[in-house]
Amino acid sequence: MNSSIRIILVNTTHPGNIGAVARAMKNMDLSQLYLVNPRTFPHPDATARASGADDILLQAKIVNTLEEAVADCVCVMGTSARMRDIAWPLLEAREAAKQIANETERGMVAIVFGTEHSGLSNSELESCHYLINIPCNTEFSSLNIAAAVQIISYEIFLALRAQQTQASINNKEEDGLATQLELQNFYLHLREVLIDLAFLDPQNPRKLMHRLIRLFNRARLEKRELNILRGILTAVENLRN
Amino acid sequence: MNSSIRIILVNTTHPGNIGAVARAMKNMDLSQLYLVNPRTFPHPDATARASGADDILLQAKIVNTLEEAVADCVCVMGTSARMRDIAWPLLEAREAAKQIANETERGMVAIVFGTEHSGLSNSELESCHYLINIPCNTEFSSLNIAAAVQIISYEIFLALRAQQTQASINNKEEDGLATQLELQNFYLHLREVLIDLAFLDPQNPRKLMHRLIRLFNRARLEKRELNILRGILTAVENLRN
Repeated sequence: MNSSIRIILVNTTHPGNIGAVARAMKNMDLSQLYLVNPRTFPHPDATARASGADDILLQAKIVNTLEEAVADCVCVMGTSARMRDIAWPLLEAREAAKQIANETERGMVAIVFGTEHSGLSNSELESCHYLINIPCNTEFSSLNIAAAVQIISYEIFLALRAQQTQASINNKEEDGLATQLELQNFYLHLREVLIDLAFLDPQNPRKLMHRLIRLFNRARLEKRELNILRGILTAVENLRN
Repeated sequence: MNSSIRIILVNTTHPGNIGAVARAMKNMDLSQLYLVNPRTFPHPDATARASGADDILLQAKIVNTLEEAVADCVCVMGTSARMRDIAWPLLEAREAAKQIANETERGMVAIVFGTEHSGLSNSELESCHYLINIPCNTEFSSLNIAAAVQIISYEIFLALRAQQTQASINNKEEDGLATQLELQNFYLHLREVLIDLAFLDPQNPRKLMHRLIRLFNRARLEKRELNILRGILTAVENLRN
């Protein structure tokens, strides 16, 4: 269970939805549920819809205000179906999940879901660093609250898994990815060799280096790959001398 | 609305779940719902949980067998929480969604959800080309059926969106991606030049070409980029001559 991610439901109307949220969370390995001023809780509908995630409901913390619920959090993300008029940093769910996975290394992260019918109020929104948008049919964009929690929890589950996989790859390889400095030096070396080859005319460079840099940046070069490429450049230089 | 993707619910027990599925589908721009032998339908619980997706429920087709429901489909995917003993091609939801997006170009694709408590039977499974697995907490892996439909529909929504974006990029660029044949010719050319440079010893090639091929495959070379790289190789050859 991940204990650095908190799901916060604000003024939830239907206890069945609270149960369904608990189930969705437990399915995706989350356990920290805060309820801000729920209309009716506990309730048999909540327990029924939790369907085995009773432990999440039992541990759920009930508070009176959103401020209390987020007081100890380093990052707060709000969810919103509506694209709001006010400018607020907006992330799509997948991108948000990656950021949440990163932020958990610094402290507690909260994801806030507003009341069923109207979502987060503008003042609740002011507690949030980012808004999360779930891409969907713009003609019918109001997701059930448990469905929204399900999608975001699923994206977080995948983001945390990818983070762990990446960490274990990094541990296994002596190498890992090339640093930005190593890349810059490679691009300088490449440019010199292309000028030597008369393939690149410094008076009329066109977009040649730009295109090559774009290509190699896209490939996310590993240190070992970069060393091979530098070796090839040196071999070309040796041929000239 | 995408009309080449069909959601099929087999022997669903709770009408509320059918309504929640309709809502999840409509949120993600899907409309084709088939119900194989539902226990109770129509039902006020279904309408309540559909919460505005009544049109999906009204158009839902009720049939007696899974065979009828998939008769006209070119591809059938089943969903399963359990990792089964029998070997069946298994895709994770994200990967499955990409394949579904591709298959829609060839005809109707079905995604089949078994009954709430036991999932798909082995004989139902035999109607499926692939099984879809939703990554989740292995200790609590039974998702609510509407939650499972929500995640898979969401992944399909994103996969179709990515497909459209890619198509419009391909239309814009004169070039597009290099073909497999062009790549093979580039790798042959690269190998020759590296041998000329005495950078690659054909008697002791180690994994050099393997690593370079892995790098360039990962970058998904565009035709224009490939032409630049071939131009550099030719410039190196000219230097020798």
